[in-house]
Amino acid sequence: MIRPTQPTQASYTLPPLGNNPSTGAQGTSPGSFACPPRVGTAYSFSSPDTPGMPAPSSKTAWDFLPEAWEVLEGIDARRHDGEDGWHVFTDSVGVTRAVHPADGFAPVTQLESARLGIITPQMKRVAQREGHLSPEQVRDEVAAGRMVIPANKVHLQHKLDPMAIGRASKTKVNANMGASPVSSGLDEEVAKLKYAERWGADTVMDLSTGGDLDATRNAIIQNATVPIGTVPIYSMIIGRKIEDLNEEIVRESLISQAKQGVDYFTIHAGVQFAHIPLVRKRLIGIVSRGGSLLAKWMLTHNRENLMYTMWEEICDIMREYDVTFSIGDGLRPGGLADATDAAQLAELVTIGELTERAWRRGCQVMCEGPGHVPFDQIEYNMKLQRTICHGAPFYVLGPLTTDIFPGYDHITSAIGATSAGYHGAAMLCYVTPKEHLGLPKAEDVKQGCIAYKIAAHAADVALGIPGSRDRDDELTKARAALNWEKHFELSFDPDTARAFHDEDLDVDTDFCAMCGHDWCSVRISKEIQEFASGKDENYDWDTPKRSASLTKDQQEILEKRGVLSQEAIMKLAHKGKKADCHSDVVPDVNVAKKVQEEKLVQLGVGIKINERTV
Amino acid sequence: MIRPTQPTQASYTLPPLGNNPSTGAQGTSPGSFACPPRVGTAYSFSSPDTPGMPAPSSKTAWDFLPEAWEVLEGIDARRHDGEDGWHVFTDSVGVTRAVHPADGFAPVTQLESARLGIITPQMKRVAQREGHLSPEQVRDEVAAGRMVIPANKVHLQHKLDPMAIGRASKTKVNANMGASPVSSGLDEEVAKLKYAERWGADTVMDLSTGGDLDATRNAIIQNATVPIGTVPIYSMIIGRKIEDLNEEIVRESLISQAKQGVDYFTIHAGVQFAHIPLVRKRLIGIVSRGGSLLAKWMLTHNRENLMYTMWEEICDIMREYDVTFSIGDGLRPGGLADATDAAQLAELVTIGELTERAWRRGCQVMCEGPGHVPFDQIEYNMKLQRTICHGAPFYVLGPLTTDIFPGYDHITSAIGATSAGYHGAAMLCYVTPKEHLGLPKAEDVKQGCIAYKIAAHAADVALGIPGSRDRDDELTKARAALNWEKHFELSFDPDTARAFHDEDLDVDTDFCAMCGHDWCSVRISKEIQEFASGKDENYDWDTPKRSASLTKDQQEILEKRGVLSQEAIMKLAHKGKKADCHSDVVPDVNVAKKVQEEKLVQLGVGIKINERTV
Repeated sequence: MIRPTQPTQASYTLPPLGNNPSTGAQGTSPGSFACPPRVGTAYSFSSPDTPGMPAPSSKTAWDFLPEAWEVLEGIDARRHDGEDGWHVFTDSVGVTRAVHPADGFAPVTQLESARLGIITPQMKRVAQREGHLSPEQVRDEVAAGRMVIPANKVHLQHKLDPMAIGRASKTKVNANMGASPVSSGLDEEVAKLKYAERWGADTVMDLSTGGDLDATRNAIIQNATVPIGTVPIYSMIIGRKIEDLNEEIVRESLISQAKQGVDYFTIHAGVQFAHIPLVRKRLIGIVSRGGSLLAKWMLTHNRENLMYTMWEEICDIMREYDVTFSIGDGLRPGGLADATDAAQLAELVTIGELTERAWRRGCQVMCEGPGHVPFDQIEYNMKLQRTICHGAPFYVLGPLTTDIFPGYDHITSAIGATSAGYHGAAMLCYVTPKEHLGLPKAEDVKQGCIAYKIAAHAADVALGIPGSRDRDDELTKARAALNWEKHFELSFDPDTARAFHDEDLDVDTDFCAMCGHDWCSVRISKEIQEFASGKDENYDWDTPKRSASLTKDQQEILEKRGVLSQEAIMKLAHKGKKADCHSDVVPDVNVAKKVQEEKLVQLGVGIKINERTV
Repeated sequence: MIRPTQPTQASYTLPPLGNNPSTGAQGTSPGSFACPPRVGTAYSFSSPDTPGMPAPSSKTAWDFLPEAWEVLEGIDARRHDGEDGWHVFTDSVGVTRAVHPADGFAPVTQLESARLGIITPQMKRVAQREGHLSPEQVRDEVAAGRMVIPANKVHLQHKLDPMAIGRASKTKVNANMGASPVSSGLDEEVAKLKYAERWGADTVMDLSTGGDLDATRNAIIQNATVPIGTVPIYSMIIGRKIEDLNEEIVRESLISQAKQGVDYFTIHAGVQFAHIPLVRKRLIGIVSRGGSLLAKWMLTHNRENLMYTMWEEICDIMREYDVTFSIGDGLRPGGLADATDAAQLAELVTIGELTERAWRRGCQVMCEGPGHVPFDQIEYNMKLQRTICHGAPFYVLGPLTTDIFPGYDHITSAIGATSAGYHGAAMLCYVTPKEHLGLPKAEDVKQGCIAYKIAAHAADVALGIPGSRDRDDELTKARAALNWEKHFELSFDPDTARAFHDEDLDVDTDFCAMCGHDWCSVRISKEIQEFASGKDENYDWDTPKRSASLTKDQQEILEKRGVLSQEAIMKLAHKGKKADCHSDVVPDVNVAKKVQEEKLVQLGVGIKINERTV
């Protein structure tokens, strides 16, 4: 028998807490619900595992050294300190290693330096840029294979500012560019590069497939402060049939691009002959360009993928310039219906094998991932890669979480990208609104970059990366203080924020047009108590003032969005009537203040309220 | 001592699988990684719990019946079958209940009908609209308090098309409208309503705070096919000080709006006097308008929140018209720094108590939630509400996952909203790009709606709601078939998709301008094998054709986004050169085909390839 029960005595217990992403633990949030960070382990910054998730691999790049190397740990290691041929050092979690490379060995790649305990200038620079990491931690993460510093020795001689990709560092964003089918001019490509850098891209891939590829690539590399990636198979088949691709062409193309200074190569060596039957029942087969070309090559020649069979040779070419691997996912799903399927996971297993083999040749490795993945499957995809590829950085494209919103795939995929970053991806390849429909234009590049900066930042805050929430907190304080200037200044895209604000209300007020004066909760809240304020002490707050008139850029932002005419917008905003205290209506500040005070009293939100300690 | 290990024998195990969101289990995805759906229980559609998450409540609305009611289950229940005053029925999971209401009781609300085993016409309609639910399941979810059908008896006499909110149904989206500080005209408000309905809003809240509120509300209710919600405190304090609010005014306003036909009321009764000190250390205090007004009222009068003290009386007013509660979260965080804090959770506990008390008075209840919540804290927020409010539908605002992107908060919050929906929220209140900056315009309403349709749909697919992936799969098949017409038709916003596509390439081709002909992986993939094709058999596929010229709407879409001139865009798209087979360059279809074939051969992607069974 059921009888009405007593009221429930409800209470709550917070889940285990991780690190606080605010430097000063500001505000009242309990802190991150991610795992406590353990930099130097597989759990550097990680989400708690949902049941059914694979555990991280117990191996790292230390388990895949070149054949002739010897490594000792602990007491065994310390005994060799000072001995010829031995490199003995203690890492940032306290493990002492003695490393004996092959005779006559000289380190070339960041990974090789890290294995010998060397902190390179690039590692130092990375530690500067990642405020929460020490140079030693950067070295240790690189040595473990969990972090890469894509920095071709040639590009380092130009303007490259070294950066790192790995889950111990902040989440990175890549922007793709390059025209199809015929290349644009050099200036145009360089302008697009600068635009991507302006909007926060951490690396840029030049995916040009036509025109003077060499000259374009050169111009981009010489101008880029960010690492440049390419998919070399594109240049390999310019002017020839895919069937005619052979080992010699692969070799020549890779050497040529490595010499130019490309920082990372996407190589689709994971697609194997045996995987092709697995795509048979897919709704959309193979959607990777490299993957489909190589599948065709294999079928034509009835041979294993030559990128796979040439792997060691490719490693040696890349090692010479320290080009980082970005092992391509040629069998990534092209729709939700094909996500996490046998083809994709079979390729991932091969990618794991290739990771181990590349580490043995001294190369830095990251792995590419999907694509189109339903929201529920993202965590598994990230954690399975972490297991199979032993923590090598995962560089994912999106993933898109629904297929029915072409024109909005920067949003469908930023959702997936945030989850991917939180669950382990180290770099997010942007998707623009033009995805699936055509070639991204400048505005699309900007929208794609911003959507992905949002995803990367949201993931960093969620993981509890130290200091990652500081700017959010400053903006929140500016918001609480109704300090519009500071609010805009702290915004990622200040012009757009200001344009949207000034569309309605081009005076600086202690409210905004969303709620209006009388309804401004923040203003009322300010009356209720004193808040910590981010407001500049010298800012003349009490004087309402007309903000600087809209710049040309801001006007363009408004024009672009305008379904309504500017007149209609103003009418809507002001309902045909400007606020009584608007500077167009009152002669001066004092009258404006008087009007506001009267209005305040009239509407019951008087300036003085009962004092009460709360 | 560490020695190089052998290559890893990698393998993988999939996590436990839930339901497949594709009706025919199309494609190769293993299916949803969410929990298997158990409609009729607390796990109707649910994500697996990350460690530390609170378990669902063992109670439901059945545990909070009016005092004089009696309920028996199982054999005890069957004995009363056919007896006077007893309602005996077996629910969809096989539980037989005998319910004896108070003497002379007649059901008014959907909840009361459901408690007596009655399937109302509204429940039937809901089951029609939610293809995966039977009318019995809808009734049972309503009886358990896990689902609401916001349908004021007065609105039902107009055009309301009943819908349901609850985790067993598809995820819903709410759009806010209403002007501040002075109301817009009736026509304008009705036009905005229609625009929100056009772009997929499942409910609309009229948050007007000025002008002729009554007339506006009437016009909206009479025109709306979707449920309309309001925040009645706004109309309560028009023309008076918040301090002057009293019981009589609350009573009159609620009765008046209930009589008008409002389907749900946001009542901020959860903010209690004792909670106010908890906001003291917040970075941004109270950001809810209702919450801040009532906090001020409490401080002025040194009294408990009158919405809280009047709760039973408010319930009785709402029951009479079956107005659904949307218990407001007046202490929701206004920034990441204040998320999941003591103030927010203390209010949630009170909301749980109010839920129980409203159920006892026969009222339908949903609860409102935050706000600004870091990505890692979202699951906990959803699951804690499920526990404390015994599965009552959770209606959340966003949440935003970062604070530093004003102008893009439809994206920052769609990310949070997807996670919220996956982890338990039943309705997502949209956030537009104008959030924090000003009053949303028509274009903002559209962008907000679309971002939230993405979030809701991505969550439904992730949860494995039957059939929710079907349209994605159809679009994927159209994409695989390079059937552009069908691709656009299946898109949520076909005009935008077509405009973006035709911006580059206004002929229907078997490739798109993103990769161009020679690089089209989908086209190459089609050559490799036969795919299931979504292409209309009668569609004259082999003839490239100029698509219909851009409509005015599509032109506007392009103009709006255009940082570049149309000329520049065309130049960029074609790199100054149209494809050799473009209809502007070749005289007719046959020549176009010939050019394409030659190009195919020249570039090594011949039409016939080696036959091989794969």
